[in-house]
Amino acid sequence: MKMIIHVFFIISLFSSIAFASVQDFCVADPKGPQSPSGYSCKNPDQVNENDFVFSGLGKAGNTSNIIKAAVTPAFAPAFAGINGLGISMARLDLAGGGVIPLHTHPGASEVLVVIQGTICAGFISSANKVYLKTLNRGDTMVFPQGLLHFQLNSGKGPALAFVAFGSPSPGLQITSFALFANDLPSELVEATTFLSDEEVKKLKGVLGGTN
Amino acid sequence: MKMIIHVFFIISLFSSIAFASVQDFCVADPKGPQSPSGYSCKNPDQVNENDFVFSGLGKAGNTSNIIKAAVTPAFAPAFAGINGLGISMARLDLAGGGVIPLHTHPGASEVLVVIQGTICAGFISSANKVYLKTLNRGDTMVFPQGLLHFQLNSGKGPALAFVAFGSPSPGLQITSFALFANDLPSELVEATTFLSDEEVKKLKGVLGGTN
Amino acid sequence: MKMIIHVFFIISLFSSIAFASVQDFCVADPKGPQSPSGYSCKNPDQVNENDFVFSGLGKAGNTSNIIKAAVTPAFAPAFAGINGLGISMARLDLAGGGVIPLHTHPGASEVLVVIQGTICAGFISSANKVYLKTLNRGDTMVFPQGLLHFQLNSGKGPALAFVAFGSPSPGLQITSFALFANDLPSELVEATTFLSDEEVKKLKGVLGGTN
Amino acid sequence: MKMIIHVFFIISLFSSIAFASVQDFCVADPKGPQSPSGYSCKNPDQVNENDFVFSGLGKAGNTSNIIKAAVTPAFAPAFAGINGLGISMARLDLAGGGVIPLHTHPGASEVLVVIQGTICAGFISSANKVYLKTLNRGDTMVFPQGLLHFQLNSGKGPALAFVAFGSPSPGLQITSFALFANDLPSELVEATTFLSDEEVKKLKGVLGGTN
Amino acid sequence: MKMIIHVFFIISLFSSIAFASVQDFCVADPKGPQSPSGYSCKNPDQVNENDFVFSGLGKAGNTSNIIKAAVTPAFAPAFAGINGLGISMARLDLAGGGVIPLHTHPGASEVLVVIQGTICAGFISSANKVYLKTLNRGDTMVFPQGLLHFQLNSGKGPALAFVAFGSPSPGLQITSFALFANDLPSELVEATTFLSDEEVKKLKGVLGGTN
Amino acid sequence: MKMIIHVFFIISLFSSIAFASVQDFCVADPKGPQSPSGYSCKNPDQVNENDFVFSGLGKAGNTSNIIKAAVTPAFAPAFAGINGLGISMARLDLAGGGVIPLHTHPGASEVLVVIQGTICAGFISSANKVYLKTLNRGDTMVFPQGLLHFQLNSGKGPALAFVAFGSPSPGLQITSFALFANDLPSELVEATTFLSDEEVKKLKGVLGGTN
Repeated sequence: MKMIIHVFFIISLFSSIAFASVQDFCVADPKGPQSPSGYSCKNPDQVNENDFVFSGLGKAGNTSNIIKAAVTPAFAPAFAGINGLGISMARLDLAGGGVIPLHTHPGASEVLVVIQGTICAGFISSANKVYLKTLNRGDTMVFPQGLLHFQLNSGKGPALAFVAFGSPSPGLQITSFALFANDLPSELVEATTFLSDEEVKKLKGVLGGTN
Repeated sequence: MKMIIHVFFIISLFSSIAFASVQDFCVADPKGPQSPSGYSCKNPDQVNENDFVFSGLGKAGNTSNIIKAAVTPAFAPAFAGINGLGISMARLDLAGGGVIPLHTHPGASEVLVVIQGTICAGFISSANKVYLKTLNRGDTMVFPQGLLHFQLNSGKGPALAFVAFGSPSPGLQITSFALFANDLPSELVEATTFLSDEEVKKLKGVLGGTN
Repeated sequence: MKMIIHVFFIISLFSSIAFASVQDFCVADPKGPQSPSGYSCKNPDQVNENDFVFSGLGKAGNTSNIIKAAVTPAFAPAFAGINGLGISMARLDLAGGGVIPLHTHPGASEVLVVIQGTICAGFISSANKVYLKTLNRGDTMVFPQGLLHFQLNSGKGPALAFVAFGSPSPGLQITSFALFANDLPSELVEATTFLSDEEVKKLKGVLGGTN
Repeated sequence: MKMIIHVFFIISLFSSIAFASVQDFCVADPKGPQSPSGYSCKNPDQVNENDFVFSGLGKAGNTSNIIKAAVTPAFAPAFAGINGLGISMARLDLAGGGVIPLHTHPGASEVLVVIQGTICAGFISSANKVYLKTLNRGDTMVFPQGLLHFQLNSGKGPALAFVAFGSPSPGLQITSFALFANDLPSELVEATTFLSDEEVKKLKGVLGGTN
Repeated sequence: MKMIIHVFFIISLFSSIAFASVQDFCVADPKGPQSPSGYSCKNPDQVNENDFVFSGLGKAGNTSNIIKAAVTPAFAPAFAGINGLGISMARLDLAGGGVIPLHTHPGASEVLVVIQGTICAGFISSANKVYLKTLNRGDTMVFPQGLLHFQLNSGKGPALAFVAFGSPSPGLQITSFALFANDLPSELVEATTFLSDEEVKKLKGVLGGTN
Repeated sequence: MKMIIHVFFIISLFSSIAFASVQDFCVADPKGPQSPSGYSCKNPDQVNENDFVFSGLGKAGNTSNIIKAAVTPAFAPAFAGINGLGISMARLDLAGGGVIPLHTHPGASEVLVVIQGTICAGFISSANKVYLKTLNRGDTMVFPQGLLHFQLNSGKGPALAFVAFGSPSPGLQITSFALFANDLPSELVEATTFLSDEEVKKLKGVLGGTN
């Protein structure tokens, strides 16, 4: 009898406290409005364990493409539970000769861990200095926010790495796609990069750019 | 006459500037969507002085319970004006022998001030070191973010304290409730804490846990 | 033929990546709810280059007023693209003898650059120390967040400056307007500033205050 | 025997983990350099429980002064353990007729709880609107960051309140001290506030200003 | 000849710009003072590619211990280049039957990816709700900041996972170590957890606690 | 006599409060250690008004170079007072035909205002979309953090603009310098950009690259 009363008191104490704790997390509701801090939060009553788990990194990305590589992101809203928590992940698959071309993540630093194979990775600082390393299984490398970097399979077999970002939406800007795979006029590409008209037009042809 | 013109110019100058200043504050609108940064903002035209005042900390919490203690929070959305401002408050009432059990606030550091009585308070660092003090009226103690801590009435009469948090929704996770007052399977509790099956089942009984 | 396939693979690679990059920016949608982090984001499909450009600073503000000065803000939502990016701008026009009265920006530090004329600018620290300088064309001065400061045309002709803020909604609180241009009761103004009843009532008359 | 081995393994496991956890807190070392994020951290080996406790708020401040009030801060470095944790506290004592004059905290929002007496408190927004309330024992009020506000004893006996800030160094700028208690030239005070020369000189006399 | 001049101009343009860009990163200098934002920065001239690479996660941790598991961190200052970048990593090795006991990271959210084996993982929210999942190779799970969680090898062979944190020093507080592996007096453990004296003393014996 | 006492009390009240307000600002001390949050703070007693003013933007940069343009930064530590305040400025001079080549600021968003002339400016999003505008005197454009952008004099005479950044050290990475003006091996440039060996070697010759 006494025990039942105790439980009752505990529960009522706890209920009032729990009310205040909605924002342990903010699972992405892709149907609500976005704000500068991320997606709207799903009603906590509709949140379950599946919101915090993402299985999309379990299979290799398709590397049958020009770069012989694939980037598979685990970002919000697909990975709903990560919204607002300041981190995210992605999987890199590099077939033999594969490369993640020179790119930046405008909104986050990146840390990479090699799971399989050998990867040559590098970044370039604002001071124009190159930091270049060959990474083996288990090696970890960090790429500071916003700096140009790349990863290249320098081994014989396929390579696999996971990367983490300090933002749920780090962005990804591949330099050559930004230059040659949209409608940025060729004369602007040339004037702002010193590349030749011939080279620009050739790469626009390869990568699907116009203008 | 000249004065009237001046006032007119001032008002028009001011109006254009005021338009830009909506975000001095973001009073919680509990009916709008939440984001990782907090509740949606109430229309500023509907905000008044009552949104910035909360009277719920004025009366003692009910301490007729198993812990002889009560935590009364002043968090958003009940305290609507505090939304987005990075702080909040709560009131702790500890009857004789009362205790706020071992707990963490996942999202904020806490600072406590003793108003009445004597409180034995402590926290444990990541380095597993215990920081323990007996606090008297007017003493202030800080509990760094996310670390396990507790407060215990070590005096003769009742004790009263106010606490402030560096977040409008600090969260509150009472360790023994997390372990014994939900449906976390007993074998998982045991495997992850080294507690005995007998002890786990006994406390699940006291605190209302299942499984 | 091979080239076409390459382009196809690139595009499909890119599409999946692009999906995750919505939050390069969050152009303000003034019709959606606001959050502590700013305005809701406009649908990216409806964003275009005009959202990132604001032409309102191109013409001089109207300085035919009691302060012979004008502040023209480039804040969200008028400057929609700046929402969530942590910065904003404004234009200061000071006719001969013009002054931006003593004020604070509650939510941001400010950096000013003089484009035309001579400006006497100053701020006062929490330690009650005055930092005062006469600024000429091209001079830049920084005003730390929340501190009282002012700008005054100390040259012969008109003066022009642009200022930037470390927030998209820095706020603007002009001290004398806060004291004398609203319904704050005169006895409270007097009790909290040491100003005389006569002075307070005179300035309420000039600036449109009541009570 | 087996138990001893277990303990050994645990300890060695734990030691390597503990090494990484220095930054649970950063107790202020006032002899080291300061950074924009606060004071340098004291060597963790020299930190003890006293660093996290501050007793200076236990006694009433001296209210035998022109404002019949006292503000007693619990800030870093005096309250060393609070450094870097994003919060701080202060004690307000208001004798009969006492007032905390109009002021701002440039770097933090404030939340106040009344412990004794009756306090009339108010703040003014960037939109120049006044938010004014009479607060009784246990009432809590929030003052958004950087906005002008004041507290005034509107009861018969003395009043006591504790306030918390969302920063370990919120700053404090009392408007009339900034105007009249330093060497800011009278003509600049007048030009930037519309106050009369007579009033400015009178208050400079009372509050110790020069120039 | 003209080319040489061009290069000269470029270099001089670049040099002045590069001077301003020291803070792309802040490689940890463990000999300098720490601040709330992390370790002091090593002189950029002494930074090289090795500062951004950490090889310590390449080999399995020693799981011959009571928990049959090991956590190997890649935190600053061992992983010097990660200082100040808001992220870090660790490696989890779980032998058959291994478990990472119930714990929190006071300063960061965590995202885990399973590389090998099967892991049963769970966390408990402030609202006392359990989120529990069995994770297979390639599955990713996120644990929101500061919440109690655990990982347990639920497969037949060994399991391996990498985890990333949204902070370079997330901290790690293992609940049973905090309770039973230090000098926190038994009567305080009992009063703040409801555990029996017998159980507390038994676990203090196993885990090395005193008092 | 009474007045003198008042002043005395005020001063003593104020002194104790001022002690707590050191961190209104953190003027850069270039001789102290840097932290992830910026430069060490100069002793407040040695700070004066000159620390908050920078005159280096007052004269045009030298545009007699390959890009017919100059960027003059007002960053810490040259502009010492801006340290830790989250903002900075720079001046852009573009002679006829001048261009600020394609670049990113890894650590900050940028807002630009045109003072003289006509500037064609653009940026490219993570979604590979181009945002392109011709800006005239007084026009303001924002470039979101980390995205590739450029500015080009599209008028007849010289052009002048000021830009502000949401960081005191935004960084600056000019894409073609990162590719062609350092020792990044040509085969890595080619593999990560799809550019031809011929083009890479030609531009390395022009811009001073090796390898």
